[in-house]
Amino acid sequence: MSGPNYISRRSRLLRTFKNAGIDALLISGESNVRYLTGFTGDSSWLYLSKTAKVVLSDSRYTTQIANECSGLDVDIRDARRPMSVAAADVVKKAKARRLGFEADHLTVTQHSALHARIESAELVSTSGLTERLREIKDKWELTQIREAIYQAERGIGVVRSSLRPDQTERDIRYTLEAAMRSFGATGPGFEPIVGVGPTGALPHAHAGDLLVSESPMLLIDWGAETRSGYRSDLTRVFVTGRVTKQMRTVYETVLKAQQKAIAAIKPGATCKAVDAMARKVIANAGFDKFFGHGLGHGFGLDIHESVRMSPISEQVLEPGMVVTVEPGIYLPGKFGVRIEDDILVTNTGHEVLTSVPREFDDAVVEFLA
Amino acid sequence: MSGPNYISRRSRLLRTFKNAGIDALLISGESNVRYLTGFTGDSSWLYLSKTAKVVLSDSRYTTQIANECSGLDVDIRDARRPMSVAAADVVKKAKARRLGFEADHLTVTQHSALHARIESAELVSTSGLTERLREIKDKWELTQIREAIYQAERGIGVVRSSLRPDQTERDIRYTLEAAMRSFGATGPGFEPIVGVGPTGALPHAHAGDLLVSESPMLLIDWGAETRSGYRSDLTRVFVTGRVTKQMRTVYETVLKAQQKAIAAIKPGATCKAVDAMARKVIANAGFDKFFGHGLGHGFGLDIHESVRMSPISEQVLEPGMVVTVEPGIYLPGKFGVRIEDDILVTNTGHEVLTSVPREFDDAVVEFLA
Repeated sequence: MSGPNYISRRSRLLRTFKNAGIDALLISGESNVRYLTGFTGDSSWLYLSKTAKVVLSDSRYTTQIANECSGLDVDIRDARRPMSVAAADVVKKAKARRLGFEADHLTVTQHSALHARIESAELVSTSGLTERLREIKDKWELTQIREAIYQAERGIGVVRSSLRPDQTERDIRYTLEAAMRSFGATGPGFEPIVGVGPTGALPHAHAGDLLVSESPMLLIDWGAETRSGYRSDLTRVFVTGRVTKQMRTVYETVLKAQQKAIAAIKPGATCKAVDAMARKVIANAGFDKFFGHGLGHGFGLDIHESVRMSPISEQVLEPGMVVTVEPGIYLPGKFGVRIEDDILVTNTGHEVLTSVPREFDDAVVEFLA
Repeated sequence: MSGPNYISRRSRLLRTFKNAGIDALLISGESNVRYLTGFTGDSSWLYLSKTAKVVLSDSRYTTQIANECSGLDVDIRDARRPMSVAAADVVKKAKARRLGFEADHLTVTQHSALHARIESAELVSTSGLTERLREIKDKWELTQIREAIYQAERGIGVVRSSLRPDQTERDIRYTLEAAMRSFGATGPGFEPIVGVGPTGALPHAHAGDLLVSESPMLLIDWGAETRSGYRSDLTRVFVTGRVTKQMRTVYETVLKAQQKAIAAIKPGATCKAVDAMARKVIANAGFDKFFGHGLGHGFGLDIHESVRMSPISEQVLEPGMVVTVEPGIYLPGKFGVRIEDDILVTNTGHEVLTSVPREFDDAVVEFLA
């Protein structure tokens, strides 16, 4: 498998310029710059037009850009020359007339500095031009995402097989991160959430000092990051103590909601329609008050990318998109259940990329009494 | 030692409103929100005025905010209600007239959404109001930074004592991160830079597959993050092979530059004057072309904070500031030397908080021949 084709990515982006009403674009979003150039550092922008392709960076990155980015000009500034000046210089030299900027990434301060320094071109707000390209993963990206899933799934296997009642949430987080690295990950794809009992009811809690033995439920939301920067994102709940009827009901409801939503994933489906499939199952079971977040999201170089699956998302699924499906029910002070898998939209429907067992019986972990 | 006094922090921020020409402020910078409230999640904003203190968040964080933030009202929105609507509602209810926003954190898109939804108040651009408070660390913060330094220094001790010629940069990075965690860190304060030989000449390289044995020089730039979110930031170079005259000259030049700069740190000194002390030593030795970045930066909840020590920084040092001093000389294709310590500005001068040995002879690591 050959690597990413940055030239083709930049060509596709250039073809969006006419509709956006621009003849050049200043790309400042870090993952967008990486997607379009291969550069893995930060604080660097890409100026892109038909006639000029320039990376704006500083001397920390001179050699790294030479190694990582081919076919691009480079403007290296020193500590005395702000980014806005470097940008104004390239705009003037390249004779841009209508310069797009990324409104979702540029801060108000950065925009003001550009506005003050760029006189020869009009600044035009754009949103999501590169992000929309990134929604559709190419073949190489899919191999990277599959690798990130492999690393995450091997990692959780180690956690599960080494689980003990006397481990803390933090112990489990560190075991998981080390295990994913032993399978080739550079690290976690995001800070893993490891929540015992009530902590699992906080959808974004930090792993702390609760012991596995302190509650019968354990929630883990984790993923890996590959060397190429691609991520995976899963959630599983483990039952580590006496099963109650409520636990089983909540778990089965979430799983049913997730499976209904996954079944609805195909090209042409709207994100809000898929979200509604899950939300309806949870509402019918009387738990709608306890599911406040969106159903899922795209991921890749970032852990949260376009598309978003939520009740207000009009986005339409297309082949090549990869999304999480992760409904949850959170009972404050008790426990939370979320089940999350990674789904590829195919030409005819979908493929579930993740394969950690998800039935209730699979979730039960037995310790010596 | 009691914990942070959030009420006092918010009071000090409120006292800056008059000068800034605002009667309320919308704080969207994640670390600023944490500094002012104790909240450790993301995607949440703080509305602050004399009469109203409201955290704007979503249902993922309902319980976490209740646990972490006392003395604040909370507005929890669901997936159907964008942040800009929640903000407009609180502005209207609290009757703000001139609403400040953080221009360094708000994106152009977020600003446009607020502008479209908020009719009753004028939006006023502000910059660095909370960041300026954060420049001066209080007693509790200093204990946290000292703890982060302890974790980092114990960690590098483990790395040094276990260093082998057959380790890769990546092996060393993972050993370091695990060691810092064993001393209480939640993880690294930033992605550790571990660079063998030529990789050390890239000031911000990723740890890769080079072996220690492949070059006589090894650069490590690392720090820890405490459970409370505070960080440390150090750099050391190890000499792992045959010493050349050039290596020694470059090392001694960087060290001399660093020591001259540290000696100049005291209340009232300008950042550019301190930067100039180091830059002059490096220029006099003929290496000015090979030192392109600023001399150092403040740190705390973020790894890069105000103040910035660079040739163009007019900022003035004050007691309670904590900054890095990290000059470097980078010889492309050969090696880089950077020596970085963490310095507290005291009432009468400064205190070097870090204590890993930094003389050239200390840097030499002997392996069995």
